[in-house]
This record gives sequence, C-alpha cells and structure tokens, in this order.
Amino acid sequence: MVNRIFFLITVIGIPLSVAGNLLHWPSVIMFGVFCLTIIALAGYMGRATESLAIVAGPRIGGLLNATFGNAVELIISIFALKEGLVEVVLASLTGSVLGNLLLVAGLSFFVGGLKFKRQEFNVFDARHNSGLLMFSIIVAFVIPEVFSQQMNDGEKLTLSIGISLILILLYLAALFFKLVTHRGVYQHKEESNDVHEEPEWSAKKALIILLLATAAVAYVSESLVHTFEAVGEQFGWSELFIGVIIVAIVGNAAEHASAIIMAYKNKMDIAVEIAVGSTLQIAMFVAPVLVLISLMFEVNMPLVFTLPELIAMVSAVLVTIAISNDGETNWFEGATLLAAYVIMGIGFYLL
Amino acid sequence: MVNRIFFLITVIGIPLSVAGNLLHWPSVIMFGVFCLTIIALAGYMGRATESLAIVAGPRIGGLLNATFGNAVELIISIFALKEGLVEVVLASLTGSVLGNLLLVAGLSFFVGGLKFKRQEFNVFDARHNSGLLMFSIIVAFVIPEVFSQQMNDGEKLTLSIGISLILILLYLAALFFKLVTHRGVYQHKEESNDVHEEPEWSAKKALIILLLATAAVAYVSESLVHTFEAVGEQFGWSELFIGVIIVAIVGNAAEHASAIIMAYKNKMDIAVEIAVGSTLQIAMFVAPVLVLISLMFEVNMPLVFTLPELIAMVSAVLVTIAISNDGETNWFEGATLLAAYVIMGIGFYLL
Amino acid sequence: MVNRIFFLITVIGIPLSVAGNLLHWPSVIMFGVFCLTIIALAGYMGRATESLAIVAGPRIGGLLNATFGNAVELIISIFALKEGLVEVVLASLTGSVLGNLLLVAGLSFFVGGLKFKRQEFNVFDARHNSGLLMFSIIVAFVIPEVFSQQMNDGEKLTLSIGISLILILLYLAALFFKLVTHRGVYQHKEESNDVHEEPEWSAKKALIILLLATAAVAYVSESLVHTFEAVGEQFGWSELFIGVIIVAIVGNAAEHASAIIMAYKNKMDIAVEIAVGSTLQIAMFVAPVLVLISLMFEVNMPLVFTLPELIAMVSAVLVTIAISNDGETNWFEGATLLAAYVIMGIGFYLL
Repeated sequence: MVNRIFFLITVIGIPLSVAGNLLHWPSVIMFGVFCLTIIALAGYMGRATESLAIVAGPRIGGLLNATFGNAVELIISIFALKEGLVEVVLASLTGSVLGNLLLVAGLSFFVGGLKFKRQEFNVFDARHNSGLLMFSIIVAFVIPEVFSQQMNDGEKLTLSIGISLILILLYLAALFFKLVTHRGVYQHKEESNDVHEEPEWSAKKALIILLLATAAVAYVSESLVHTFEAVGEQFGWSELFIGVIIVAIVGNAAEHASAIIMAYKNKMDIAVEIAVGSTLQIAMFVAPVLVLISLMFEVNMPLVFTLPELIAMVSAVLVTIAISNDGETNWFEGATLLAAYVIMGIGFYLL
Repeated sequence: MVNRIFFLITVIGIPLSVAGNLLHWPSVIMFGVFCLTIIALAGYMGRATESLAIVAGPRIGGLLNATFGNAVELIISIFALKEGLVEVVLASLTGSVLGNLLLVAGLSFFVGGLKFKRQEFNVFDARHNSGLLMFSIIVAFVIPEVFSQQMNDGEKLTLSIGISLILILLYLAALFFKLVTHRGVYQHKEESNDVHEEPEWSAKKALIILLLATAAVAYVSESLVHTFEAVGEQFGWSELFIGVIIVAIVGNAAEHASAIIMAYKNKMDIAVEIAVGSTLQIAMFVAPVLVLISLMFEVNMPLVFTLPELIAMVSAVLVTIAISNDGETNWFEGATLLAAYVIMGIGFYLL
Repeated sequence: MVNRIFFLITVIGIPLSVAGNLLHWPSVIMFGVFCLTIIALAGYMGRATESLAIVAGPRIGGLLNATFGNAVELIISIFALKEGLVEVVLASLTGSVLGNLLLVAGLSFFVGGLKFKRQEFNVFDARHNSGLLMFSIIVAFVIPEVFSQQMNDGEKLTLSIGISLILILLYLAALFFKLVTHRGVYQHKEESNDVHEEPEWSAKKALIILLLATAAVAYVSESLVHTFEAVGEQFGWSELFIGVIIVAIVGNAAEHASAIIMAYKNKMDIAVEIAVGSTLQIAMFVAPVLVLISLMFEVNMPLVFTLPELIAMVSAVLVTIAISNDGETNWFEGATLLAAYVIMGIGFYLL
C-alpha cells in the first residue's frame, strides 16, 4: 500500500517538478511538490539500500546503511550550503537531532505502547549510544559554541575543522567496533540467529534504483532550496523554523515511518536503533562532512549552532538518556518525548 | 505528640492572626505567627487528605493527593501574584524544587542512614521520575529561559502559556498512567498486598476539616504576603531569599516531616515518593497553574526564572538523579544532598 | 626498568636544577629539566606513600593516599599562587580534572581494551563516584560561576570560602564513609581477601624518602613557576594552555602511568579508582584548600573558573558518567574519552 503510494508520487512528482521549474510555477505550490517527491524518492533509496545490505552481508551492509542512511539530508544541505544558507543547514541538523530523538522515538514508544504494556530493547546498545550522544552533542557541539565566543572567525573555523575530523574518525571507529572487533558481542541470543531475510530486489536492480533515486533527489533538492525564501515570506516562517521543522521532517520522513512500524511490531531494538542511530549519524558524520564540504563554497560553515539550537539538542539528549536508560518503554515515555518536541517546536516557531 | 503541638498552634495561632491584623501588630512578629499557623494548618490538611484518600481508594485517593499535596504553596503564591510579587513566586517555586530534592531527600537519606546501613527503594519509580524531572526542569523550564532572551514580552507569554498547557496535560497523563493503565505494574510484591490502613477520620469529618483548614490557610496566607516587604527590610533579606528559603520551607514543612519519619521507619519508597513526587507536582502542576492564574491579575507571570534559579534547579536535578539512580541510599548520600542545599542557600543569601 | 629511569632522572635532575638556577640557564631548557625532575620525584612520593599505606593498614593508608595523592599539584599551585598566578592555578585544576577523567581513563580503557574484549569494574563505586562528581563539579563549581556574575568581589570571595569549607567537610565525610562506617560493604568478594602485599620499603625508609622527595619537589616547583612567562612567550602558549595542559600533565604523570599499567593487567577497579578518585581529590580537597591558602597571599583565588574551563569540566563529567555507568569498558569507550580530550585540547590551544 505505502509502496504503491510512493510509486504514484514518484511518477507524478518528478515530471511535475521539471515542469514547474521550466514554467516558473508559484514557489509555494512547488515547495509542496518538491517535498512530497523527495519523501517518496527517499523511500526508494531506503529500500534499495536495504536490499543491497542484505546481499552484501552484515559488514558491508552496515557500512552502506551508515553512509546512505541520511543521504537525502546530506544532499539537501549541500545545495543549501552552495546557496550560502548556512543558518538553514545548521537549523536542519538541529531539527534532525530533535526529530529523531524526540519525534521518532516518541511516536515509536507511544504507538508501540498503545498495543503493548511494556516493551523492551537491548540495554547495552542504549548505554553504548548514551555515551556517544553525550560525546557528540555535549562535547563536540557545546565546546565550539562556548569557546568560539572568544575567538575570531579564523580560529573558529580551525576549531570546527579539527572537531569535524575527530568526529568522522570516531564515527569510523564506531563502525569498526560494531561491525568488526565487537560484532555480536553484546547481542541477545534470539537476535543473533535471525531468520534469513530475502532482499526485495536483486543487487543489480537495487544499485540502479539507488543511483537513479539519488540523482532525482539531487535534482529536486536543488529546486527545493530555491523556494525557501518565497515560502518563508508567504507563511511568515523564519529560515530557522523552515530548517528545524520542515527540512528535518522531509529529510527523515522515510525513517520516521519505518521506526513507528517496527515499534508497532514490538521490534523495539530496531525502532530505537533507527531513532538514535540516525541521530548519531547526523551528529558524527553528516554535520562534520558538511563543515568540510562548505570549505569548497563561498560561505564556510563553522560547527557553531545558535544558543537555542544547542540548548534544545542538549535537553533532548538528556531527556532521551534519562528515559531510555532502563531498556524499557511504555506509552507515557513516548508522550513525554512528544511533549518535549512540541515545546521546542513552539519555541522555534516564536523565535 | 506532634499532633498535639499542631493543635495548640492552631487554636492559638488563628485568633492571634486575626487580632494582629486588626490591631496592626509589628510585621516581623506577625510574620512568625503567620508562618507557624500555616505550618500547623498544613498538617491538618495533609491528615484530612490522607483520610479521604484511604476511604476513596487508590485512584481517587491518588488524585486527591496530587491536587491537595501542594495546596498551601499554591494558596500563598496566588496571594503573592495578586500583589504583583512575581519574583517572589518564581523564587518560591525554585525553593520548593530545591527544598524537596535536596533538603527533604537529603535529611531523609541522612536520618534513615544513621539507623540503617543501606536502604533500598523501588528503582523503577526512581527511573520513571528521573525522566519526568529531566523533562519538566531541563526541557520545560530551560527552553523558555534560553529562547525568551530573543523574544518580546508578548512572545514570552505565549511560549509560557503553551508550555504550561503541555505541562498540565502531561501531568494528567502521568496520573492516568500511574492510577489507571499501569497501576501496580511496576510494584514490588510486598508493597502490593499492603496491610489495609484505617483512616484517622471519617470521610465527612475529614472533608469538613479539609475545607476549614484550607479557608484558614487562605486567610493567613494573604496576611503573610503583606509582611514580606517589612521583614525583608528588617533582616536585610532580598525578595529572592524570602521566596527561595522562607516561603518554600513554610509551604512544605508538613511534607518534610513525614518524609523524614518514613525514612526513619525504613519506608524509603514513601520518603522518596514524597520528595520527588512533590517536586514533580510543583514543576508540572503548581507552576503552570500559577502561570495561567496570573493571566487574571494585573501582572502576568511568564515561566522564565532567573539564571541562578534555573541553574540551581538543573544542578539539583542532575545530582539527585546521579545519586538516586541505583535505588539505594546511605547517610553519605544524604550528606551530599544537604551539602548541595547549603551551598545554594549561601549563594541565594549573598545575591 | 621504569624505576631505574626515574632514579637516573632524579640524580641528574636535582643537581641540574640547582646549577641552572644559580647560573641562570635559559628558561626554556630549565622548564624541561624541572618538568622531568618533578615527574621522577612524584614517582618516588607515590611509591613511598604506598609503602607507608601498606604498613599502616587500610584506614590510615587510605588517609595517606587521600592526602599525598595530589601533593605535587598542590605544591606547584601554592608557588603559583604566591606569584599571583591565579589564572594558571584555576587552569591547572581544570586540566587535572580533564586529564584524569578523559586522558587517564581514556588511555586505560583503550590500552586495556586492546588486550581484553570486555573489562569490568565495581559498579557500586562507579555510581558512588558519579554522585560525587556531579556534586563537586556541577554544584560546587557551577554555582559560584553563575551566582558571582551578580556579585562584587567581597561577596564572591565569601561564597568561595563557604563552598570550600563545605567541600573539605564533605571530603572528610567521604573518607569516614569509605574507611570507617561502610568499609568493605560494597566490595566484591574476591577483592576483599586480597593477597597480603609486601611494602617496597620499611616504614622508616619510606617516611624519609617521602619527606626528602617532597622537599625537592617544593624546591623545583618554585623554580618551574618562574619559567612560565618566558616559556609562554617563546612558544606562543597562553597561561591558560600552560595550566590546562602542561602543569596538569606534569603534576599527574605518575598516576597516569600506574592507571594504564593496572588497566593492562585487567585490574580495572584500580585504574578507575585512580582516574576518578584523583579527580574527586582535586575537586573536593586540592581546589578548596588552595582557595583557603590563597587568603594568606596578596592575590586571593575565588572558586570561579572561566566559562570555557567550567563547560569543559561539566562536559567531561557528563561523558564520563554516561560511559562508565554500566561498569564495563572496551577500547572504543577509551577512544571516545580520548577524542573528547583532544577536542578540548584544541579548544584551549586556540583560545
């Protein structure tokens, strides 16, 4: 069903996007078309990556997921950087962190909790992730914010580049730890002898779909970025709000859907892995890569968030850790995370 | 014994309060009379609520406790708001949070720990509460502080109202979770088949006492608020100090006493529930209700604390969570919490 | 082997130090001589304290370790205070906290993790220490920073003295808890019936070595402090960087070495105890003692760190707690702590 809708949106959305660009249709309408098309294409990219991962085995598969998991967000952000929209990119990184930790995890816990009284997930993974969340948000994002207040632009950028390189290195180390030196060490028994999954598509077909969908996403993303200004003026939204709420939701919609479906099937390990794993990918891979890519453009992006963005992320990390520390979820824990998301949403809307 | 002292204070304190008001006795003396009378009346309100709760059964009883548990503080604060003393009210909310988390829990752990080497309490409740403490203090109180620095007064108030409504909603959801959907799910076996308690008073008698004591508290509280200015000048206390230390201790004295008694009887579950439960009630119910009530008065109260108040509350939450996370207490953990309270007390005194 | 190198450095370093002082050799060279000599002497002090502790039994031994464990840092700091270098002292306290929590623990976890897949340590101790880390850094260091922004110098100092007295009192209470009221209560079985260790030196010999080494450290430290200005100018290092990185590493080198050796022998309890115990000693004993000692000098030292120092310490505490909360370590957790240390190091270098 969902797949059929995505197919429809794709085959209608791409020609509409091209036509709208050529004929200069109104930005606000095209903004909607672009968003829906990207969401549908992201669905294809996700399914193609999954098929490839199954064929390639857990190690290369894990690597593929780790690289393509946030490809859509990366592509949109690169085009935004090219246009010099540094604030939008930082805001959308913030929005992805908040969206994954509070909205995705919150909805998963809440929806899953409506069906099951108590749901459990792998406590070791949760604690492993707690440490990395603290490291990436509370060290790697907080330090440049505080230190750069007494720095000039050059020192700010040097610090950002240094931190970005360390983040990427540690992200690679985390993959090496998870996929090589400690693979399966902390897993439940039941998980490890998984039923062997069948890939949806053959490797060749999956690769072609992945490449085509990525190319299409790139095209539509570039167009999307150009509508931000007009949409902001029309609806009275700030660049900050567009980044934190809109771009973040469009960029992560596909993952949001699968996390909630997994929670409803009582596969909380996977739901939590999507929410927190995706956050870590944003913080430890997408954000630093964007800092480095921005060096090739006119306007460089330092890893310095605004104070509200930073405090919102720190709060989200602390609440998530406090709530997920016991390896158990229920509907009320989901409601708490959602309430935190709504509070921050109101805050960013009013800024 | 304690009950007899409370009876004496009540029968002497109320006529003295009326006489002092009519004859304009010195504010400093009346401040003492009002404080003692309120403490004694709060004791009656607590006992009446308890009797009603036993008769009404756990669900309605839980609801009664949740509503009347901080009634005294609510009443004093409403009269202070009416006088436009917004700073005193915010300070007294801060003081209640600090007092419950550090002073009450600290004294309970310390006194209990002098008698018992190790005392245990329900870890699940502690973790459930950790999540809510993080949410209410570190999200709902921190966000408006940081975001409102870039907002005008109207936006500040809109944000405060929005957060207040969400807090009250989540507080109701927490009650629904605890009393309906997950009642008894996480309890120890021994706790669940409690000895059936006998109420101290019949439902009718308890209700009359509750209503009369509430009316008397309201009368005395209004008088108390009028003495703040004179007392502050006399002793060189700032409004902040009066709110954080004095009002908070008077408003919570009855609960303080029962928590310590419970700890001494090795009923740590109840002692912790009083300290942390009361904090959550202040943060998720009393504070947002006061924001909404203030809309009817001349001076509105936004949910924006001063930076020292906020940092003190955040520190208190983090220390409490770190200390109570293991479900065990001893005298030294109590001493640590008390030391934190004294440090903050010195800080607020010197401000 | 290590002992032989330390012996050589000592018998060469002390005469060189004296000669250099008399003949006014270049500051930059003498800086290196002084640093190496202090590191070697610190090794002697550590071994002498250990011998005395074994002879004296666990109670007095624990007290000896608690007092002499950071003697070198204390001595260097006193001479720096005498010269009015308050910023260097605060920076070196910060550097010791960061060095112990991130560099020592990080290297221990990493090196130990290269040999062992999973290493365990006493979870109770870790949680007991979590509470104290939160208390000392996030309450006792954060509160004066935030509150003193609205205070004059006199109030600032009063607050600092009050907090220092409370910290020392709680530190003594912690020793009383650990060595008297709750000795052995939370230990593993295997640990408690330790093999009886033989002291390296007799009590008399150990005492003489301890006194001589302390006297020599005091002499060399005074000389070291006088080279800071010249070294800073020569290498372009700020006082902050000298304090945070250089003084902290020289002052703690001996402990660093033993923690890593213990981790390599899979004695993680001891490695963690050195790293975290030493941090607590710095925060709860060395720092407040220095505040009180500074009252006798011309320039008083309030307990007010700079914002970057404070945020770095708070981040380090939160990351350490998140990572060590599960009582288990591996190479990747070590890498994460080291990455945090490098990020902060870059930050302080660029400031």
